[in-house]
Amino acid sequence: MAAIADTPEPPYCAVIFTSVRAPGDEEAYAAADEELTARAREQPGFLGIESAHADIGITVSYWATEEHAAAWKQVAEHCAAQQSGRQRWYAAYRVRVCRVERDYGFGKRT
Amino acid sequence: MAAIADTPEPPYCAVIFTSVRAPGDEEAYAAADEELTARAREQPGFLGIESAHADIGITVSYWATEEHAAAWKQVAEHCAAQQSGRQRWYAAYRVRVCRVERDYGFGKRT
Repeated sequence: MAAIADTPEPPYCAVIFTSVRAPGDEEAYAAADEELTARAREQPGFLGIESAHADIGITVSYWATEEHAAAWKQVAEHCAAQQSGRQRWYAAYRVRVCRVERDYGFGKRT
Repeated sequence: MAAIADTPEPPYCAVIFTSVRAPGDEEAYAAADEELTARAREQPGFLGIESAHADIGITVSYWATEEHAAAWKQVAEHCAAQQSGRQRWYAAYRVRVCRVERDYGFGKRT
């Protein structure tokens, strides 16, 4: 279920994945995306994930350290390679690896 | 139009705003959101913005420095105060202020 990730106190690592989908293959894409998210949740250092898809897709995954995020990159790229590459799903994408310095907000996070 | 932001080489600052909408007020919310985005684009240090709304909303704004992001926070909160607060629009939200360390991707950004 989509929700605001229940992340701990900063600092931690955020990986912002912004994408524009290539047309078609909706069902296969949804299945691959779901599988990848399930894999992320099993990775060491996983803190949470947030995802919204409209005209563009934005998925932010949160990791205890940058090393955990880098390890996840290897796993994600391996999965993508098995599916003939992210190029199959996306017209364009950008990945930004960030250090979360501080956060604030209100309301229940999950 | 929704697109991948054409940001420069890191480092720069990303503000991830993840939200769960309070029910109702769709039109007024859309108008307020549009106005706020237009204001962001006029701010010093603005680099780009990406937004997707589904079950949750994720908006990431990019800024040249953390100081520019902090100045934007003041403007955004002033706007929100004029509209009786973000609490009017949201059941919950979380803001994460990040330093983008590196990025990569493929395809046209905008």
